[in-house]
Amino acid sequence: MTRGPVSPLAPATFPVLPVIGGAEFAAAPAGIKYRDRDDVMLVRLAPGSVIAGAFTRSLTRSAAVLDCEAKLAACAAPDEGAAIIVNSGNANAFTGRLGQEAVDSVTHSVAQALGVPAARVFSSSTGVIGEPLDHARIVAALPALVAGLSEDGADRAARAIMTTDTFAKGAAAAVAGEGGDIRIAGFAKGSGMIAPDMATMLVYIFTDARIPRAPLQAMVDRGLRDSFNAITVDGDTSTSDTLLVGATGRSAAAAPVGPVAAAFERALHGVMRDLALQVVRDGEGATRLFEVRVSGAASDEDATRVAFTVANSPLVKTAVAGADPNWGRIIAAIGRAGARAERDRITLRLGDILVAEGGWKAASYREEAGAAYMQGRELVIGIDLGLGTGARSVWSCDLTARYVEINADYRS
Amino acid sequence: MTRGPVSPLAPATFPVLPVIGGAEFAAAPAGIKYRDRDDVMLVRLAPGSVIAGAFTRSLTRSAAVLDCEAKLAACAAPDEGAAIIVNSGNANAFTGRLGQEAVDSVTHSVAQALGVPAARVFSSSTGVIGEPLDHARIVAALPALVAGLSEDGADRAARAIMTTDTFAKGAAAAVAGEGGDIRIAGFAKGSGMIAPDMATMLVYIFTDARIPRAPLQAMVDRGLRDSFNAITVDGDTSTSDTLLVGATGRSAAAAPVGPVAAAFERALHGVMRDLALQVVRDGEGATRLFEVRVSGAASDEDATRVAFTVANSPLVKTAVAGADPNWGRIIAAIGRAGARAERDRITLRLGDILVAEGGWKAASYREEAGAAYMQGRELVIGIDLGLGTGARSVWSCDLTARYVEINADYRS
Repeated sequence: MTRGPVSPLAPATFPVLPVIGGAEFAAAPAGIKYRDRDDVMLVRLAPGSVIAGAFTRSLTRSAAVLDCEAKLAACAAPDEGAAIIVNSGNANAFTGRLGQEAVDSVTHSVAQALGVPAARVFSSSTGVIGEPLDHARIVAALPALVAGLSEDGADRAARAIMTTDTFAKGAAAAVAGEGGDIRIAGFAKGSGMIAPDMATMLVYIFTDARIPRAPLQAMVDRGLRDSFNAITVDGDTSTSDTLLVGATGRSAAAAPVGPVAAAFERALHGVMRDLALQVVRDGEGATRLFEVRVSGAASDEDATRVAFTVANSPLVKTAVAGADPNWGRIIAAIGRAGARAERDRITLRLGDILVAEGGWKAASYREEAGAAYMQGRELVIGIDLGLGTGARSVWSCDLTARYVEINADYRS
Repeated sequence: MTRGPVSPLAPATFPVLPVIGGAEFAAAPAGIKYRDRDDVMLVRLAPGSVIAGAFTRSLTRSAAVLDCEAKLAACAAPDEGAAIIVNSGNANAFTGRLGQEAVDSVTHSVAQALGVPAARVFSSSTGVIGEPLDHARIVAALPALVAGLSEDGADRAARAIMTTDTFAKGAAAAVAGEGGDIRIAGFAKGSGMIAPDMATMLVYIFTDARIPRAPLQAMVDRGLRDSFNAITVDGDTSTSDTLLVGATGRSAAAAPVGPVAAAFERALHGVMRDLALQVVRDGEGATRLFEVRVSGAASDEDATRVAFTVANSPLVKTAVAGADPNWGRIIAAIGRAGARAERDRITLRLGDILVAEGGWKAASYREEAGAAYMQGRELVIGIDLGLGTGARSVWSCDLTARYVEINADYRS
């Protein structure tokens, strides 16, 4: 579980997260698995808050995910408060009947402690799969968590949910509304077992916007494609991926409509994209971030197939690790992606450098230029299939010996 | 390109390959890329030989593959001889118009040198993609190759086609026919960029059976599913995968029919399976071979999906490398495979050890037993989905830091 130094792709600092009126945070050490660190975080959302969300599509998804999905579908009235409780160290996944019992125990205890309906208490668990969650430890930590709730507590909460992360992930935005600003603040964890749908991670985003649940959910849904569903670290999807978005309605600004609603949605999607890319930046062992930008596909579906096949190819990912402009491996990945492709119509670029076209290496291509480009920390592999207008961009990171070391460590 | 020591999963010795009457082999150093080693091999098949084959389905397949496919489809009459010429060091793939010119140059030169029709000269190339093949070097080596042709030359030919292989791969079988034995001898290369369809490799199998082309091709086709299409090293498929099977008809045995035909087909499939597994045993950096044996799926297609998702999961493959019985990662892979699955119906075994059932860890499971099992060199991950009769077994190897080192080396 030790990760060593902070990823070289990490942002310089954790951002200053604005206070979101009506959202309070706390963290505490419950001793689930780690020693001497916070491993539980609690969020209290004031009455009137609405919740939207998105979850892993895994067929073996965790008890907490199943519980969150059921509660969101039931759309409990927002006139009472809500809460989110999250633990790290144990995923409470594939734990049979005991899994749901643990979720019930934790969420009912939170409901009682905060005086909110259990149907409005959402939970997540992240860590090892298949071991029973010692929920009594979480319940025992509740008094300390409740006592510690604070509108300034988001940073510490962001740290409590980390597992193999080497840095805490936060993002924020503000939009000028009518009568005041609308603020967005979010944080996330995730660094391995990352792939759509969704990427393997936990994400919590809060806003003071006055927005009903349905349009908030629609905005979240529209934002997934180019954020959490556009990233991959290892092609593995977790049982626990969770995104929850809470809107407290405490902004002085009027409910966003027209251009303000559009600006709010853009800002929300920006926060989602920022957090998603931070997860790739913290990919286990990652030293380079690369975008696979596909255009000219026969359809968007074809573009997606090509983009993820290249982004997940171990041979492409190791070439990126070695700063090797081994473009033949990219061509091979395109050829096996299952999308329509014609060898002689493919155009391949590394950044702005034209590498191959017309079925062969470009006349202007110089290996030294490709090699120099590959030394960068952030790369763009541009693929135009020359067939249509389908396009997709996805983000991935390199595959290094360190990834293997981290994941081959006994029960990391 | 250096691989270091022989894979710990290699067979103890290269098998004794029986002489196949009418099949002669030669190898020579042409200096395509490597220095001081054979890198071209030539096979001459006597008049009357028939050829069957199977090839990569990549849409960016190499010039040689396209040429072989066209020649096989044309079914040139077997009353004249045939030949196969193969080089290592350069794949002649994604080399545009120059690619076909190189194939034509080499195959026409072989045709002239051996006095066989060019339509009966098959070629393969393996190595770096996207660099022009210096075919003049192969043509220059032809006199030495022709002079060296010998019915005993298969071992040396098997070595000449190696790239990152750490050991030469051979397999043989014999079947009692009416009036004599029917012999089969084959060899293969491949160790990375291995995945269906087909696995990334070159395979050449020869038999003295008296068998027409159509039934031979049908037997080859039926054997692919559980041999070359059932293995994966890294989920990457090459542009050059080629299987060619030549039958010289020189056996004293009568043409195989009835039970002899069935025995011959089983023996042929055995050789195909043996060679396929040897490729996995030589997976780059591999230290453990594992079978993913799926049963109880709603369909064979679902079983295949689950088997390959588990077999290709970097998290499962690194857990195998670390001898970690991290079965939660297997469950997570099942959940995202895209096949029908119900959490509480899944039964998971490591070898004979029952690990999980009924949605949770089995009551009898002891972590120490799982950990001890994972220390083995050859493992079986057994997954029963409890839904139907669909089944599939596939073979994979672990993902080690050495895999990354081999493939991140500049232009390995």
